[in-house]
Amino acid sequence: MAKVAIPKGTRISLRRYVEKKYVFDTIRSSFQRFGYLPLETPSMENLDTLMGKYGEEGDKLIFKILNSGNYFSTFKDDQEILEVKSRGERTFSLKISEKALRYDLTVPFARYVVMHQHEITFPFKRYQIQPVWRADRPQKGRYREFFQCDADVIGTNSLLCELELMQLMDDVFAKLDLKVLIQINNRKILSGIAEVLGETERIIDITVAIDKLDKIGVEKVKEELRGKGVSEKAIEGLQPLLEFKGDDAAKLNLLKELLAKSEIGKQGIAEVEQLFGYAGLVSFSHIRYELDITLARGLNYYTGAIFEVKVDDARSSFTSSICGGGRYDDLTGIFGLPGMSGVGISFGADRICDVLEEAKLFPEQNAAATKILVVNFGEEDIPYSLGLLQQLRKAGVNAEMYPDPAKMKKQFSYADDRGIPFVLVAGSEERKAGTVVLKNMTEGSQQPLAVDELISMMVSNTN
Amino acid sequence: MAKVAIPKGTRISLRRYVEKKYVFDTIRSSFQRFGYLPLETPSMENLDTLMGKYGEEGDKLIFKILNSGNYFSTFKDDQEILEVKSRGERTFSLKISEKALRYDLTVPFARYVVMHQHEITFPFKRYQIQPVWRADRPQKGRYREFFQCDADVIGTNSLLCELELMQLMDDVFAKLDLKVLIQINNRKILSGIAEVLGETERIIDITVAIDKLDKIGVEKVKEELRGKGVSEKAIEGLQPLLEFKGDDAAKLNLLKELLAKSEIGKQGIAEVEQLFGYAGLVSFSHIRYELDITLARGLNYYTGAIFEVKVDDARSSFTSSICGGGRYDDLTGIFGLPGMSGVGISFGADRICDVLEEAKLFPEQNAAATKILVVNFGEEDIPYSLGLLQQLRKAGVNAEMYPDPAKMKKQFSYADDRGIPFVLVAGSEERKAGTVVLKNMTEGSQQPLAVDELISMMVSNTN
Repeated sequence: MAKVAIPKGTRISLRRYVEKKYVFDTIRSSFQRFGYLPLETPSMENLDTLMGKYGEEGDKLIFKILNSGNYFSTFKDDQEILEVKSRGERTFSLKISEKALRYDLTVPFARYVVMHQHEITFPFKRYQIQPVWRADRPQKGRYREFFQCDADVIGTNSLLCELELMQLMDDVFAKLDLKVLIQINNRKILSGIAEVLGETERIIDITVAIDKLDKIGVEKVKEELRGKGVSEKAIEGLQPLLEFKGDDAAKLNLLKELLAKSEIGKQGIAEVEQLFGYAGLVSFSHIRYELDITLARGLNYYTGAIFEVKVDDARSSFTSSICGGGRYDDLTGIFGLPGMSGVGISFGADRICDVLEEAKLFPEQNAAATKILVVNFGEEDIPYSLGLLQQLRKAGVNAEMYPDPAKMKKQFSYADDRGIPFVLVAGSEERKAGTVVLKNMTEGSQQPLAVDELISMMVSNTN
Repeated sequence: MAKVAIPKGTRISLRRYVEKKYVFDTIRSSFQRFGYLPLETPSMENLDTLMGKYGEEGDKLIFKILNSGNYFSTFKDDQEILEVKSRGERTFSLKISEKALRYDLTVPFARYVVMHQHEITFPFKRYQIQPVWRADRPQKGRYREFFQCDADVIGTNSLLCELELMQLMDDVFAKLDLKVLIQINNRKILSGIAEVLGETERIIDITVAIDKLDKIGVEKVKEELRGKGVSEKAIEGLQPLLEFKGDDAAKLNLLKELLAKSEIGKQGIAEVEQLFGYAGLVSFSHIRYELDITLARGLNYYTGAIFEVKVDDARSSFTSSICGGGRYDDLTGIFGLPGMSGVGISFGADRICDVLEEAKLFPEQNAAATKILVVNFGEEDIPYSLGLLQQLRKAGVNAEMYPDPAKMKKQFSYADDRGIPFVLVAGSEERKAGTVVLKNMTEGSQQPLAVDELISMMVSNTN
């Protein structure tokens, strides 16, 4: 007897599955509203497409697929097997595995753009909602299989794309009825700061430290900077930024002073000003946005705008990021196609579900679920019941009949367990009269109806 | 530089991807209309859940996932590595791999039902549309990653479920506007035939041979039966069935005579008669059905009804099966839960796409695609254009603006390449007048419009 189990870190509840489907459907409709094309790439990529793209730790977390067939034939002899084995699992795996499961959607997207560069019309706007796999240690909220949900525009530098992504986020969160805050930064501003402080080499250390400002306060940030070997002069130069209080306009003015001598810094400020200018031209319903120069997300690859989205809603206590993204100047260079600038965002579907659950923002009625159960009274009444069922379905109502002539109690408890809101009772009496009795499971009430009344009532309940 | 390629047998065209999405969306809406619940299971199953379920050949085609981390630590020493290796890749794989990719949707469904038997409300109606993976040699129409599209009811013997699946198929093929023929058989009739011929042991040989009747003719079938060692007496007994011409009622009468002494055979006939009786109570729009006792699909697991669906439409030359299924009395017994009767069908999405392509039945307009491109005339006109864009999207129209103020020719050719049917021209002149010019890309015509005229025109074009 096989043991009945599934791999660790792959199980999600049916409820979460339905919740996620709601979130994905919502996001997908916004992606389409904004002209993004759907793309799906194969679950498997060649191992060498993925290796080396996510750092050393990432390489270990890539799920590798064992070659099928006689994979030992790639070894000369047993001696070679032991020799390769002695060099460790990483090396050995490369001999017996050529394929791997997708680790994120970004690298497959870059691979796709390069492979299809001559067929693609640029600028290329694509969205992708697919699972990715990571051999991570499973824990609460961290799965080995989970969905990513990305939209990117590639092949243009236009800041209208950044604006569009902000509008797209507004569209999504408006549909979900969740208020959010978009924190915006620009990598060029961070580069400028490092430059004027004379610490260009230490940009990562500096940004990682000031990223913690909210959590640990000014003094601890300075301590951390000292620990990393940042000069006292530089720390002193940072002081006005660390202590700054004020709105975006004041923040930009301070940055203009501070970065007056940095070309890249000034460019970053100009980009933020242009984006904010664009944003002032449109109306948002569910997002606020602000410049946050402590934001250092994705510093290894973002080259322009950086976005991070947080919940900004009294109904939620959630503080982590639920969406994020930024601009990258050279996503496809690694596959031999340089100079392709792009900008993208990624929605964290699981976290969004957590927030919607907490804030009770999931719609109560599931549009896809069964609306009405037709009671099965046995052979004699089946012709009448089948006719009613067919009429309901033709009218667009999700309907089913209980397959066995079981006791009423059992049939009603099936409807109850499944959350089916209406039960149709049509036994011999109703059949002879050509009527039905409709039971409302939520209210516990029931009413006799003519068949056409039933149909129009259920149709209006469906729409 | 990494070589830019993807694993063999995983590439599908963007066009086929869009086609499949249409087919899946259509089938999904029917599944929901009939009260089936959506289920998704993890891509990975424990290897021992899958091994031994698909025969020896199937075991080889299962994609195994290499254990992450130090997988050599499960071996005592190098000696053991070589010893296990000498027993072949199959044995070695089991030492370094614990997980595998889903091979079909049926075994994971059975595993799911057993694991969740105490939470599930039976009868359990579920549908599942997910990819499966097979390490098959890729060839035209055969992929290593492809989608299956299944619906099953488990936990009841009621033949109303068989009827429901026929209605479901009618609903799907009516939406796709494709006429089909459902061939129906019953495993119990086949068992009865083997029994009365005194060849119960040779049921597989007999049914496999008569399955070829259409293709190779009566004489060749008899030859094959002789070759398999079926007695002359039995072959003679089969003669009336092999030569039979007539409608379903006549066929059932002949079977009643032939199987008068077989209890299981009579039961099979009674089931077919009851199902046909039910089918006579409802109306079908796009399916015909007939009893076909040569149908032997899935003989290893089906125990009652067997379905096979073929195209029956003058617009298609397709002869292979595009959908099929049947009843199985004991799907979950292998995982320790006996006596769960179920019935299911599976749609062959790729083949259905082939048929719809040939018969030109795909809708021309893709509802998800961009309807209108707003021309970008540069900074001065952007505020006006952004306002128009926002109004269009708010009205439910999929719309985008070209991100750069490129030459008109380039922007129009982008719309053309993307198949965007309308382009909105709103330059300084229109901006000053508060109007727009709408260009119809299909007809080549253009017309000046007030903004509200534009919106209502695009909305009616969208619905």
